[in-house]
Amino acid sequence: MRYLICFSYKGTNYHGWQIQPNEVTVQSILTSSLSLVLRQEVELVGAGRTDAGVHAKRMFAHFDFDDEIVDFESLSNKLNSLLPSDISVFGIERVADDFHARFDAKSRTYRYYISRRKNPFLGDLSAKMTFPLDVDRMNDAAMALFDYMDFTSFSKVHTDVKTNNCKIMRAEWMYEEDCLVFTIQADRFLRNMVRAIVGTMLEVGKGKLSVEGFRKIIEQKNRCLAGTSAPAEGLFLCDVEY
Amino acid sequence: MRYLICFSYKGTNYHGWQIQPNEVTVQSILTSSLSLVLRQEVELVGAGRTDAGVHAKRMFAHFDFDDEIVDFESLSNKLNSLLPSDISVFGIERVADDFHARFDAKSRTYRYYISRRKNPFLGDLSAKMTFPLDVDRMNDAAMALFDYMDFTSFSKVHTDVKTNNCKIMRAEWMYEEDCLVFTIQADRFLRNMVRAIVGTMLEVGKGKLSVEGFRKIIEQKNRCLAGTSAPAEGLFLCDVEY
Repeated sequence: MRYLICFSYKGTNYHGWQIQPNEVTVQSILTSSLSLVLRQEVELVGAGRTDAGVHAKRMFAHFDFDDEIVDFESLSNKLNSLLPSDISVFGIERVADDFHARFDAKSRTYRYYISRRKNPFLGDLSAKMTFPLDVDRMNDAAMALFDYMDFTSFSKVHTDVKTNNCKIMRAEWMYEEDCLVFTIQADRFLRNMVRAIVGTMLEVGKGKLSVEGFRKIIEQKNRCLAGTSAPAEGLFLCDVEY
Repeated sequence: MRYLICFSYKGTNYHGWQIQPNEVTVQSILTSSLSLVLRQEVELVGAGRTDAGVHAKRMFAHFDFDDEIVDFESLSNKLNSLLPSDISVFGIERVADDFHARFDAKSRTYRYYISRRKNPFLGDLSAKMTFPLDVDRMNDAAMALFDYMDFTSFSKVHTDVKTNNCKIMRAEWMYEEDCLVFTIQADRFLRNMVRAIVGTMLEVGKGKLSVEGFRKIIEQKNRCLAGTSAPAEGLFLCDVEY
């Protein structure tokens, strides 16, 4: 029987989502906790990956388990007691046996938080940038994203994906209290894509790159032309839409 | 010349606001940083006190300085560079020589945050309480507060204040994302008052105390009758109104 688990994590102390040898990752911690509570080795298939230091407000993974789980709330509570304070399970539900956490996701929404002044409460939950930024120009660049499909320029060079095409559904900068927040929703994301887009848009916001120049970077499909990736601590996977 | 400084702090690592021998307090850190930047010993007079572990979103203090400060922004930036990451200065302004950060405050607003489920991002910034709570009854108790002036029952026993009278201007429980939040505004607060009120209201929310019983506790003016103080980490001084 297949189950879907929804959870949240602060990525600061993890080497990203994906299990890796000799690294503490969210997937490794969650897999071992779940296997312990269910008394059976389970494997988690995540909706996607997040890099080291990146956070997730609502992330999903599916797993197969031989028995029927009756009390989902009790299972969530047991997991939350066992998991460290920076990983929290919201809920578990039964799904169809052919449901796939990654392939069945229609889109993902990421948000990038830039705190515009020193904030004692945001700690590792935003990137602090106090230099002047032209947000209107950054929104012009955000609008430009809708005109393209191939985002090779914002992808890690060596990845095994067949296509670098993504369908952008939302891309917008706005203020939220002390933070400048970039929200981006797409059917899929390439590795490092959001941080590379944000880093390049920051060049636009600083006046070092024109919106036309931003378009040219996308059109030339060359990662070397794009700006430096924005720091991991500002990035949140906010939701996965099924 | 007298100046007013507005700042924010995460109280987790401090023994409250007030300078105390052999303890790290917000006042001691801010006073030494300000004296260092201004190259003159200054004394800070705060708008009030916060206990160990309590946070402040907008707190104020005044200080006297011999010279005229011309560039407030530069002074704030220097202070923020010097101060630890959990204390942040928002602004400094000149005020009248007889202005007093404590006596001229018309009211203070506190908020108490209770996270209703495990949240990886709230850490020391809320009190976690997942047991059932009847929020309607808690709001009935909050409404009852408006009928009283003397809050001796919610004060520390040994304090040097002349009167235990406070004028409640706002008292309300509401949901804010994953948190249940109590907002209370009054002309003044007694020591430990908000946490004692919240702790006693929690008894009402659990069904262990009636709203009538809550009223009787206030009327009997005896601290021993009130509930246990709610934990410090959920409490924020949110603003001081002048």
